[in-house]
Amino acid sequence: MGPHPAVAAIRLAVRRVLHDVLNEFAERTERTERAPRPELADAGPGRRRPTLPERPDAPLVLVACSGGADSMALASALAFEARKLAVRAGGITVDHNLQDGSDVRAAEVVARLAAMDLDPVEAVSVHVGRDGGPEAAARDARYAALDAAAERHGAAAVLLGHTRDDQAETVLLGLARGSGIRSLSGMAAASGPAGRYRRPFLQLDRQTARKACLVQSLPVWDDPHNVDPAYTRSRLRHEGLPALEKALGKGVVEALARTAQLSRDDADALDTWAAEADTAVRDDAGQLDCAKLYALPPAVRRRVLRRAAVEAGAPAGSLFARHIEEVDRLITGWRGQQAINLPGRVEARRQGGRLVIRQS
Amino acid sequence: MGPHPAVAAIRLAVRRVLHDVLNEFAERTERTERAPRPELADAGPGRRRPTLPERPDAPLVLVACSGGADSMALASALAFEARKLAVRAGGITVDHNLQDGSDVRAAEVVARLAAMDLDPVEAVSVHVGRDGGPEAAARDARYAALDAAAERHGAAAVLLGHTRDDQAETVLLGLARGSGIRSLSGMAAASGPAGRYRRPFLQLDRQTARKACLVQSLPVWDDPHNVDPAYTRSRLRHEGLPALEKALGKGVVEALARTAQLSRDDADALDTWAAEADTAVRDDAGQLDCAKLYALPPAVRRRVLRRAAVEAGAPAGSLFARHIEEVDRLITGWRGQQAINLPGRVEARRQGGRLVIRQS
Repeated sequence: MGPHPAVAAIRLAVRRVLHDVLNEFAERTERTERAPRPELADAGPGRRRPTLPERPDAPLVLVACSGGADSMALASALAFEARKLAVRAGGITVDHNLQDGSDVRAAEVVARLAAMDLDPVEAVSVHVGRDGGPEAAARDARYAALDAAAERHGAAAVLLGHTRDDQAETVLLGLARGSGIRSLSGMAAASGPAGRYRRPFLQLDRQTARKACLVQSLPVWDDPHNVDPAYTRSRLRHEGLPALEKALGKGVVEALARTAQLSRDDADALDTWAAEADTAVRDDAGQLDCAKLYALPPAVRRRVLRRAAVEAGAPAGSLFARHIEEVDRLITGWRGQQAINLPGRVEARRQGGRLVIRQS
Repeated sequence: MGPHPAVAAIRLAVRRVLHDVLNEFAERTERTERAPRPELADAGPGRRRPTLPERPDAPLVLVACSGGADSMALASALAFEARKLAVRAGGITVDHNLQDGSDVRAAEVVARLAAMDLDPVEAVSVHVGRDGGPEAAARDARYAALDAAAERHGAAAVLLGHTRDDQAETVLLGLARGSGIRSLSGMAAASGPAGRYRRPFLQLDRQTARKACLVQSLPVWDDPHNVDPAYTRSRLRHEGLPALEKALGKGVVEALARTAQLSRDDADALDTWAAEADTAVRDDAGQLDCAKLYALPPAVRRRVLRRAAVEAGAPAGSLFARHIEEVDRLITGWRGQQAINLPGRVEARRQGGRLVIRQS
């Protein structure tokens, strides 16, 4: 008899990602071996390479584990699959120091990961600042710690337990910003430096992860933040999304996750187009030509304008759709407007058929 | 003292659209006058054109009015603004025959529109079928009747009372389909044959329309369908959206409406790209070249595949994202798969480096 369907599902999801990681690792190793080695470059024909090529160690894959159901399920699947593949598996838990006893909690998670035979296993303690609100600050601190741990251990990948439900929530949070399809594209299956972060459960629902923990008798911890209505994501999870499902039907989470993927591909394609257009609409002096900008499709023109504003020093995170719309009107609705002020002391001004965007 | 701010807002919204309609009407008329007239083409130099050019009548603009607050506000603003511009204003109400006494209701609306000095004013009775569910069937019948009325009266435009709130609901309904950014793009400000349908209130909230009716003492009718939880849109309006606003904040409706506009422009740009790519990826025999398809960005490739499937006879409305994904795997994940069956007896098959999509 095979494993419970939920356990089979989490393992399959992890196996697929491990295969990708292994393939990429093999490709990288091959490239490195093929590259000329400086220490051998001067060697005469008499010197020979060692008969046994130096075999790199099996790649290390870490799981980021909070102790919650999603990441505990992920850790269990990683431990199981790594045994069957040429992969070393380890685990990291981040102690955010936001609740009393969080260090005890972190030590418990470390013990549970070690009991799964993960090695290395480590608790990393971080200080959460205040920038961008509590959720963003905690996330920034967490990723900084995970980045550092990945570097320290030379990990080829770090697995994250985000599920399809998390993805749906992220899409709705992006929708609330109203800043276009890039913000609808949710989380990527692979992100971070060299695609270090992998999200094997992005197509899997939260219920499956919970079920897999239950049938494997894995104790899980429910982070009280996840049900605290002070947090936007928590309100969305417990009130917003259920109400939306009640109105629109059970397929909403899946539809939101599919929207994320389609939006991501669309946004990537349009960014590519805008990068090409950016060159084509500049004159010999590198200035933006208003007539050429006018001839672009609005979606591409707005992206070119956004690129130019960021290049001039406007912080990308403070540049909203309404800013770009106003700059766009210098092209599409020119009535002799004054210069448009953008974040980061950047201004956009139309001057004799050219659009000048620069920091003052 | 000027009008109440809500009344000023609805009038401004309508005035802008009427200016557009007048400009387009003038352009059309000019083009027609500039075109060589067959009856004058053979005239010798001795014949002269009449000294006074034949002036076309002022264009007729109709308002589609259900008697609800949005369209009553729209009718009142049209009546007011048309008096100041060279525009004739009329009104149409559609009797869907879905409720007892709907004919009496329609007669009341006609009387109210006539009292605003709209002329012509007409009630059109329709039979609602069953295709695509009750909401879609009612919509189809309504637009068919409005199209016919517009033709019959020679109307230059038909104004519709959709507000920003309607737009937000439409975006969420599209989101629930999970079929990509085109379905997120909501309703267009201008749509239908030659952009006949105009939606002046698309940036205006429902509350403003209600307020404008109140302060102008316009009696309005609340369609019981709008609060009937049997209808998806009604559930969304009264439960889904309020819950989402509670979780995400008051700006959700505006964010959804802005998403609609941005998504529409993005989808248009990508469609343009796909139309150009469609030619570039075909060989001399007009067949799709798999290697060239592979080189396209995924977002563009999927659109090319969708176009090809529709061209081969697959009904666009039955062709879902998952169908296209499966066809896409013939290009990106070729492992000797069998032909993919698509709606409308269309099949997609990879044959010696070519992708063949045709009806069986």
